[in-house]
Amino acid sequence: MSADPFKPAQRVAGARADVWTIVNEAAAASPVQPIINMGQGFFGYNPPPFVIEAAKGCLDRVECNQYSPTKGRPRLKKAIADSYAPFYNHELDGEKNVTITTGANEGMLSAFMGFLEPGDEAIIFEPFFDQYTSNIEMPGGKVVYVPMIPPSRGATEKTSASEWKIDMEKFKAAITPKTRMIVLNSPHNPIGKIFSRDELEEIGEVCVKHNLIILSDEVYDKLYYTPEKFVRIANLSEEMWKRTLVVGSGGKIFYATGWRVGWLIGPEHLIKYVAGAHTRICYSSVSPLQEATAIGLEEAEKYNFYEESRKEMKAKMDRFNEVWDELGLPYSDPDGGYFVLVNLAKVKLPEDYDYPSYVSSRPRDFQLMWFLIMEIGVAAIPPTEFFTLENEHLVKDWLRFAVCKNDDVLETAKERLRKLKQYIV
Amino acid sequence: MSADPFKPAQRVAGARADVWTIVNEAAAASPVQPIINMGQGFFGYNPPPFVIEAAKGCLDRVECNQYSPTKGRPRLKKAIADSYAPFYNHELDGEKNVTITTGANEGMLSAFMGFLEPGDEAIIFEPFFDQYTSNIEMPGGKVVYVPMIPPSRGATEKTSASEWKIDMEKFKAAITPKTRMIVLNSPHNPIGKIFSRDELEEIGEVCVKHNLIILSDEVYDKLYYTPEKFVRIANLSEEMWKRTLVVGSGGKIFYATGWRVGWLIGPEHLIKYVAGAHTRICYSSVSPLQEATAIGLEEAEKYNFYEESRKEMKAKMDRFNEVWDELGLPYSDPDGGYFVLVNLAKVKLPEDYDYPSYVSSRPRDFQLMWFLIMEIGVAAIPPTEFFTLENEHLVKDWLRFAVCKNDDVLETAKERLRKLKQYIV
Repeated sequence: MSADPFKPAQRVAGARADVWTIVNEAAAASPVQPIINMGQGFFGYNPPPFVIEAAKGCLDRVECNQYSPTKGRPRLKKAIADSYAPFYNHELDGEKNVTITTGANEGMLSAFMGFLEPGDEAIIFEPFFDQYTSNIEMPGGKVVYVPMIPPSRGATEKTSASEWKIDMEKFKAAITPKTRMIVLNSPHNPIGKIFSRDELEEIGEVCVKHNLIILSDEVYDKLYYTPEKFVRIANLSEEMWKRTLVVGSGGKIFYATGWRVGWLIGPEHLIKYVAGAHTRICYSSVSPLQEATAIGLEEAEKYNFYEESRKEMKAKMDRFNEVWDELGLPYSDPDGGYFVLVNLAKVKLPEDYDYPSYVSSRPRDFQLMWFLIMEIGVAAIPPTEFFTLENEHLVKDWLRFAVCKNDDVLETAKERLRKLKQYIV
Repeated sequence: MSADPFKPAQRVAGARADVWTIVNEAAAASPVQPIINMGQGFFGYNPPPFVIEAAKGCLDRVECNQYSPTKGRPRLKKAIADSYAPFYNHELDGEKNVTITTGANEGMLSAFMGFLEPGDEAIIFEPFFDQYTSNIEMPGGKVVYVPMIPPSRGATEKTSASEWKIDMEKFKAAITPKTRMIVLNSPHNPIGKIFSRDELEEIGEVCVKHNLIILSDEVYDKLYYTPEKFVRIANLSEEMWKRTLVVGSGGKIFYATGWRVGWLIGPEHLIKYVAGAHTRICYSSVSPLQEATAIGLEEAEKYNFYEESRKEMKAKMDRFNEVWDELGLPYSDPDGGYFVLVNLAKVKLPEDYDYPSYVSSRPRDFQLMWFLIMEIGVAAIPPTEFFTLENEHLVKDWLRFAVCKNDDVLETAKERLRKLKQYIV
């Protein structure tokens, strides 16, 4: 008999309030309403009509409302293989090289569950998407952190996301006999960095040398703003292909973060165990929206959707960032994705400003976040949440803004943010 | 460096082919096409129009296509609390007593992840839904099995599902200082048993004595065919309420097993950790179908949906089971749900019949399943899959049929099953 019969497992017990909850609750409590929420990366607009219409059509089909095969609907697996085939050096067979998951998040959990035994180590780079850590820890894995270093000029002048660099010496030093996986993210959230071919080759070499599995989170792969097309680590060589699991997301591609349709692409000897873990976690994934995503992928090129999508998002990014140029606040210009990191070291917060204890006890970016929500009416995410305590100082003056919002919302945000001028010294 | 860099984690490595895969592959390979698939419990018809229309409407709403709060959409949590309030002795607050999961399956995994530490034990009763075991093992829990005993007359005459009984002595003997949870399922899959008030009280007493958490899988709760309304263990006392997590499923209620909208209802001190685990597993669940399920629950009574649904399913059950009466094959008449167990001891399989090795190596019900698919053209599930090796003999002559199919399909199935007559001795 347990002393406390309702004692939670340690994996869920310790939770301090997560950044999403803090930001959303602050946004709800702000005197400025409605708040402009540029915090969480949800879209402020609907999926394109051809995808919405596809989803409605699927709801009329009996088989689209019932269980899908655990590994995913054959049509979606084929659509992913077909639509990605031109971007891979390796042949893609939907039945062997693709498995469907309940969003990219559960896809990553399935990969960790598929390969990590208790005590195995997985390396992630700071800043990291906060779900990575709990997903690695759930199968008993140990998270090993390696920092990415921002350009030192970032506090005083506009820099490029590409200037953030993995500390390669620390990366190599972090590898132990227990290391089994590394997690890459390109285009990167929150940095907006796209790893160059040279960087990926250097990382890949280390992975081959130590026989590591690479989990490459590429959910923003359609949104690159670099002259060179987005480089995929799985393409660098046969050695890379055979050790890489690529994470993709229908919700990110088609502006539908609530659809929970994700996938992994990779060699059969890895994919089959991801699928096995997914079956044990979610059994199967949402049927009508899997089918709609398949139709979306089949028809996307006909509507020139990917190019339009990339152009539109880049225009939003540029439109929004004008306000930082106006204010003279430096930002890290992203190469991809829909997040921008802005450095607010120059913003002088009132010294006697009143923060709740769970904000005042955190680094300065939490206070910047709170102040912006309460006084300016714009919500953003404090990026120290994505760092370990040791390295959070690297981004204590930065905030992350999501620009995947309607243009009028972006304009209102800019108008509000201009009020920061009085606080800039 | 690992000797085999791509070695899967033990939790996914050992998989023998699961029954769903075997049955579906056999169905696809049968010379009789199209097969009548009464194996997996998916519906052969669509959700009711008011629910489908709701889903289509939600797809037009921007916020319904984006991330939902991790614990679920407020409207759905409220709809669940409101629609279940009349059936509970305890007040239900959607924000405190309900959390949304990606189907009931991931809901159960979230409960195990929320409370089981490695080495903790959870008791399940045989026969069990096969996902329970992997869901308990994923957080490192140990599954402890206790058999339910079928009526001994079951091979020779029609019996009632209520005659299946938990071996209470074995149940009590199975409890150790490591036991933390038990899993109940009522209405029961595959038996169709609804536990009586007396039985639940006896089970509950044991759980109070040993301070166990009860995970009560009640996904078929709307489908009861007993004179007494479905009894809920959480209602028996305040002691029961405070230790019970009830699992529900929008997909089961609204004929949409592919929607992956499930939930848990319970006291706040349990629900909050289930929600915490769910956040780490799936982050959030499918938004437009959560909202549609909320609307479905709000409007169900207006359409008299639950009563119609119960009557319809009972009529399907009776319509289908006529064929067993005709053939003189005994079955276990269910008190709820949409599965029926039929005893085929009297069916004499040809002695020289050729089975694949993964069928001939399993108990007789696998051979019955194979024979029915190949010769008769009807697929059913061999229930030894839901037992341990020690107890599988209890059901080696039974098959499970799902009757949630259109009436014309049921009639075709009956017509085919009449061909069994020549094999009955």
